[in-house]
Parts: sequence; structure tokens; C-alpha cells
Amino acid sequence: MSDIEYIFHPKSIAVVGASPSESSLATKFFLKSLIQFGYEGKIYPIHPKISEILGLEAYPNILDVPGPLDYVICAIKSALAPQLVKECVIKKVKLISLFTSGFSETGEEEGIRLEKELVKIARRGDLRVIGPNCMGLYCPGSRISYDTSFPKESGGVGFLCQSGGNSIEGVQIAAAKGVRFSKVVSFGNASDLNEADFMEYLARDSQTKVIAGYIEGTKDGRRFINALREAVKVKPVILIKGGMTEAGTKAVASHTGALAGNSAIWNSLFHQLGVIQVHDLEDLVDVLLLFQHLKPFRGRKAGLVGSGGGRSILATDSCEREGLLVPSFSQELTKKLREIIPGELDPGTSVRNPVDFSSSGYNADIFSQILKTVASYEDIDVILTYIRATYGVDIVNRLIDSLVETKRSVDKPMAMVICQSGEPEVANLAFNLQQRCHQVGIPVFPSFHRAAHAISKFVQYYEVNAVRKG
Amino acid sequence: MSDIEYIFHPKSIAVVGASPSESSLATKFFLKSLIQFGYEGKIYPIHPKISEILGLEAYPNILDVPGPLDYVICAIKSALAPQLVKECVIKKVKLISLFTSGFSETGEEEGIRLEKELVKIARRGDLRVIGPNCMGLYCPGSRISYDTSFPKESGGVGFLCQSGGNSIEGVQIAAAKGVRFSKVVSFGNASDLNEADFMEYLARDSQTKVIAGYIEGTKDGRRFINALREAVKVKPVILIKGGMTEAGTKAVASHTGALAGNSAIWNSLFHQLGVIQVHDLEDLVDVLLLFQHLKPFRGRKAGLVGSGGGRSILATDSCEREGLLVPSFSQELTKKLREIIPGELDPGTSVRNPVDFSSSGYNADIFSQILKTVASYEDIDVILTYIRATYGVDIVNRLIDSLVETKRSVDKPMAMVICQSGEPEVANLAFNLQQRCHQVGIPVFPSFHRAAHAISKFVQYYEVNAVRKG
Repeated sequence: MSDIEYIFHPKSIAVVGASPSESSLATKFFLKSLIQFGYEGKIYPIHPKISEILGLEAYPNILDVPGPLDYVICAIKSALAPQLVKECVIKKVKLISLFTSGFSETGEEEGIRLEKELVKIARRGDLRVIGPNCMGLYCPGSRISYDTSFPKESGGVGFLCQSGGNSIEGVQIAAAKGVRFSKVVSFGNASDLNEADFMEYLARDSQTKVIAGYIEGTKDGRRFINALREAVKVKPVILIKGGMTEAGTKAVASHTGALAGNSAIWNSLFHQLGVIQVHDLEDLVDVLLLFQHLKPFRGRKAGLVGSGGGRSILATDSCEREGLLVPSFSQELTKKLREIIPGELDPGTSVRNPVDFSSSGYNADIFSQILKTVASYEDIDVILTYIRATYGVDIVNRLIDSLVETKRSVDKPMAMVICQSGEPEVANLAFNLQQRCHQVGIPVFPSFHRAAHAISKFVQYYEVNAVRKG
Repeated sequence: MSDIEYIFHPKSIAVVGASPSESSLATKFFLKSLIQFGYEGKIYPIHPKISEILGLEAYPNILDVPGPLDYVICAIKSALAPQLVKECVIKKVKLISLFTSGFSETGEEEGIRLEKELVKIARRGDLRVIGPNCMGLYCPGSRISYDTSFPKESGGVGFLCQSGGNSIEGVQIAAAKGVRFSKVVSFGNASDLNEADFMEYLARDSQTKVIAGYIEGTKDGRRFINALREAVKVKPVILIKGGMTEAGTKAVASHTGALAGNSAIWNSLFHQLGVIQVHDLEDLVDVLLLFQHLKPFRGRKAGLVGSGGGRSILATDSCEREGLLVPSFSQELTKKLREIIPGELDPGTSVRNPVDFSSSGYNADIFSQILKTVASYEDIDVILTYIRATYGVDIVNRLIDSLVETKRSVDKPMAMVICQSGEPEVANLAFNLQQRCHQVGIPVFPSFHRAAHAISKFVQYYEVNAVRKG
């Protein structure tokens, strides 16, 4: 097992291939991010001719950099990479990550040869390689990033991601929901440091509470399975396996050159190990949101509280379709709810499960009383509540005030669905409501389908873990 | 078969139970909507004591209304409804819809009796009943609505919806995407006019090009099946059946008192008849969007054009998981694409399928050339293209400019996925881009999963229809 803690704490970074040009991706992704994040070590742009980039002194070659150099980001042509790696070894660089592509993922002999060569050269020194064909490291604690839009604060999610684009999209979706990261690694072709190294590391990393991942294949199946098995013992692991269909497998081959493998084998492997498998970045973030906000719980019995008869039915169907249960409440509970909720004229009032409080005119006090009453009912494991952002700004704000206040005295896990039309004014309102819920630890989802799907995955982790540990 | 065309064209409407109070739902839903929509007939608020509501002269009783009265909306207590229905018969009213609940959906004897009674009274005259426990009619052509937020323009979607809340939510979600309606009927307990009447009507209605529906049960299975069979012959029918799980069935019983029936029977019925079955309002609107924008086509072979290697893989997996195919392109096409797309340094350029044009730096001309080239390829039935709204405002606007321009010369069906983070600024941008695409007939989806799911349902309609008609 390799201890790679040091790769996340470089004291100096060179960006090879940066230029002052507007179109320079190396500058846009790496230099600008390091500057904006306030990276405290030395930053050295490397350019053959230019002496200053973004106010930083540039050097023609890494060998010209004064003093030690820990981390090199390579954004030059693939054919020039081996020479750079040689210089890294001479300079005693500890880590190089290669944004450069054109290696084994091309499927062509020359690319495969180049990739092998640079790893071989790196291993002559103590130089570790991330990539090629990747974005490298995002580690907010060390103020290292490859995207200026990423959050500057750290959090509990470690994310190993074979695709650079998916890592950016995943972090952005998660960030908009308040999810924060310990370390993110985009590792592309995984020529040296691979999914097993990062899985082993994140399992041990005390900053990392939950491990998320997107992988396209594995370089060393046995080691990766062991790493997964050990990781799941200590923290939840949520993975997307890309290339799970015939055409997807072909797409993987041309992306990172990975062998996607047989989807049935991956499915059963994840199932056996207790890895939470999801299929898309949105689903991944949905599950992360639950781990961020909810304490572990095991049962699948959901108490539904919201308004609208038809909405309640679709909510119920969504929950049960995704593996949750929506049991009828006891007569005693029903009676208590009947005393709380008025109702005669308005369509669809139910005090069973789901509870429909529309007849109260979306009364915030009644909403709170219902939540507390359902929360006190032993035979429910989680409360799923819902509003539509289109009720009107005042009404929904009062309901969220009430929910936030109620949360203080309610220990039962609660999740929220905020339905909306997608119309910008409503969408912006829904976003604000969502942020208020997240602040008090209530995860918010845009649909019942997604809420129920994520809760079902969340619960599954503790079910499987219980079985295995018991 | 009942000809109910006249119910959508009343020359006068009374709202019984309207009041000047802020909390009056009858005023909020019905009076305000009729006024805001510019309903051209007479509007009569009915209130025992007040002589003017929202500037309209009010009457103590419908029998006091001067001149004829076509349509009565009932929003008084259920116990008072039979008397009102009697008065409607005397006044020769043609249609009453009852917002009032407290009838058979309560499951209680008194409610069931009241509902039977009012239908019996109505049938003594030529009075037809919608509801009770419903919102009634939204018919923009007649300037009739029950929600002030609904679009004032007409469109081609007829929507029969057993739930009032789902009708509101469905119209709002659809409206935000530019989908417009011919007629929407929320019909609640279906005591007289029911799902079969509205299905028969919408099948014949020349304004209605596509029928959408949400039903919880059926009052007359055989007639409804016949109505469905005939409807599907002439236009697409997309249905949500609520109460398809054990708990969902219970929720249905307490909502509209309908017998939800066995889900396996419904599933096989829809399948046999060629009805497009979906499970949620978002899915319903997604499919409507395709029927609104795309000409009929039958094949399932999708050409994917976008950027990002990992994104392409997830897109491919989503498509194939939902029943589309992502076949490899011919060598000839690949060669053509290779000539269009530059690329060496940037990760993940593919000219197979999906086409990844990231290496062009999101170049709008190259994007257009790729789209045209893939569109000209015979062995692809539909193009699915995608961008991330987070590329930057200028870049995405240029790409959409290019897409809009390209659409003029491309006949092949095209759909778009706009990925976004959910962060308000990005969400607003994505919404604007979406509107621009919709204006030129390119349907937009928020994820590959949803795009592929909807396209698969759309194609299925023409596949089944072909089989049956052949």
C-alpha cells in the first residue's frame, strides 16, 4: 500500500505549457485556479520564451526553477512529455499530473508506447504520475484546484474520478447543493497512480467521510476489489461505473483506454461488496447529499407529508417503486392527525399516509404539528415531506420557516422534495428554499423519484453493512 | 358517444361560493382566472349577502341571474350541493363542475349518497356534471381557466386529469417548456362525465393533436378501453396511471374514491393498446415536448454529438439503458469527422459515436459542421446533442446560435441535453438556451436519462402504430 498523503501537500507547483494567451487551457484551468484559490506555495509557469504570466515569473524549463519543486502539471504535447518527465526526475519532483492526452487512450501504438515510456522514466526516480489525460488534483485544504468555480471550503467527500469533465460537472452539481470535498482526483489513463491507490488513500484519509467515484475500468482488478472491500468497511463508497452497455464500453476504450469489462460482473461485485452503485452524476450527488445530512438509519418505512391528493399518489408510487414502503398509519396516529388538520371543502385531505394538509390552506403551524406528530410515530423510519414552489412566495417561505424550526426538536431523518415548474423565477425561489433546508440538515430533491431512489441507496448501505458486520 | 363540445364554450359562468375574502379559493382559482383570461361571456359571482366581488355584480342565487346560464362552478359545502344542482336544472344550466369535495372520495356513506343524489338530480335535466372534487375546465380558446398562471395561448395538447393538483402542476411544468394546451379537464370523482367521455372527446377534437392523461381508476373499464383503442388510432396517447403500487392504491381510494385496479392489468393493457405509459409529470411533459417538436420517426439509432469524454460515456450508457442504440459510425463518416475536428492536446476526442468536439475549444462552426455531417449519415435516426451551461455564457450562446442556424438545413430529428449545476445563474442561462432551442423545434432535456427515456417512448408509439396499422 502506497502512502500518498504527500501528493496533496506540495510546497511548489510548476505549470508546464501555460501561456498568456486567452485560449491557453493550462492557464485557464491550472494557473488561474491556483491564484484564485490563494495557493500558498510557489507557482511557476513554464514557458520557453515568456518571462511573466498572470503576474508570476515564468521559467523556460523546470530545471531553471530556483529551489525545490514538488508538483508539475504537464500541458504540453504528448511527444514532449517523456523529456519533461526526465527533467522531473532530475529535479526530484515528487508528482507529475498530465493534462496532456494522446497516449494509450488513442488506441494507437505510438500513444501506448509514449505512456509506457514516461512511467518507466518516472519509476527511475521517486516520481509518481497522475494521468495522463486528466485534470489532476482538487484539494481545497491545500488551496489547489483546476477549476475556478469550485468551492474554496473543504468538506467530507473524497472523489476519485477517471474523467476530468465528469469530475468538474460532479463537483459543480454537488457544490450547488452545498456538498463539499476533501480531495478530488481526476486520474485519466491511470498509468501509474490508479483507482486502487486513490481508493486505499481515501479509505484511510480522516478528512474523507464518504468516498465517491467514477471509474471506467481497472488496471489491477484484484487490488481494486481489495481496496473497495476495505474502504466499505470504514465509510460509504458510492460509485458510477462508466461503460456498462455495449456502446458505452466502446466509448470507454476511446476515452481513457480502459477495459470496461463485463457489466454483470461489475454489478454483482458492487452488490457483494456493499458498494452503492449509481448511474449518473445527479444520482451520485443525491446520495452524497443524504450522507452529508442524515444520521445512519436502516428501515425503509417512509412517512409522507405534503399537499395535493394526486401528488400524494405519485409520491407514494415513486417511493414504492424505488424500494421504500409507505405503510398506513395506526388508528391512534390517524386520530391525532385528524385533530390537527381541518378540512371539509378542499379536495383530497388524507390523514393516513401520505398526509395531505392542503385543506389547511398550507398553514405553517399545522404543517409543523403534523411533522412532529408523524416524527413521534415509531413505525416510520424517515419523513419525506414536499411542497411546490408555485404555491406563492409568502406561503412557501412560511412553510420553510416552520420546517426549519421544527427540525430543532425532531430527531427522525427528514428529507424534502421541492417541486417546481422550471420557470426561472420559481426555480430561483426553489433554490433559496433548498439552501435554507440544507443549512439545517434537511436534504432536498427535485422529484420524488430522485428522493426515493437516493434514500433507498442510502438505507441499502446500512442494511448491507449490518449484515456483513453482524 | 356523447358530444360534449358545447361544455367548452359556455356563454355565461356562475361561480357559486365566491367571496371577496383573501382566503376564498373560489375567487382565487375561478373568478380571478376568468377575469385575467378575459373571458368574454358573462361572469356571475354567487354569494348570499354580498352584491359585488372583484368589480362584478354578485347574485344571492343562480335563479336570480338575469338571462341564461350555461356553466356553474360549485364551491360551497357538499351538503348544499344537491340543492344547487336542483336550481341548475330549473335554470337550464348545461354544465356544473364541483370544486367541492366531501363526496364518494371520503369512503363514507353520506358522501357516497350525496354524490349519487346530485348525479340523479342532474340527469332529470340536461345537466352534465364534472367532478365533484375537481378543478373543472381550462380551455384557453374560450378564455376559461382555473389558474391565473396558465398560458393564455392555445396549443395541441388535450389533457384529462383526474387530479386537480396534478393538472396544475402538469400544465405549469409543460408551460415553462413552451407546451400549450387545447383543453384540460380536471374531473375528480368522475360521477357523471368521466375519463371515457373526455378520451372520446379529445380523440375527435381537431384542436387536440396529442392526448395526455392522469387517471386513478375507471368507472367503466370496457368503455374506457374502447375509447383508448380508438384514440390511439388517430393520435398519440400518453398516460400516467396513479396508484400502481400497493400503497398507491390506498392513496387513490382516499383521493377520488376510484378503484385503482391491478397494476399488471393496466400495464399490459397500455402496452397492447399502444398507449405510452409514463410514471410522473416530468416524464409526461418530456414526451409531450417530443411530440410538439419532432416529426414522426421510427428507428432507435442515436448519433451523439457533444463534448467531454466521461460525459459521452454516461450519455451512451443512458441511451442504451433506455432502449436507444448508439452504433459506431462508418469508416467513411469517421474520416469526414476527423477532417472537421482538430485535436491533439485536449483529452477525449472521439470521432466515432459519440462525437466529442471538446478539442475544438467548443468552436461553434465545427459544432455545426459535425451536426450537418452526422445528420447526413443515413444510419442514424435521431441526433442527440449536448452542452454544459457552465462552459461560459459566450461559448454556450455561440453554440446555440450555431445550432439554431444549423437546424434550418437539417431535416433529421434533433434533441438537446443542456447539463447544468442547478446554481441559479447557470439555471437561468440554461433556461434561456432552452427557450431558444424550443423556438426552432429542438426539444431540450435536463439529462440524458430523461432525453433517452422520452425518445424511447416517442419512437415506441410509431413502432407499435406501424405494427398495428400494417
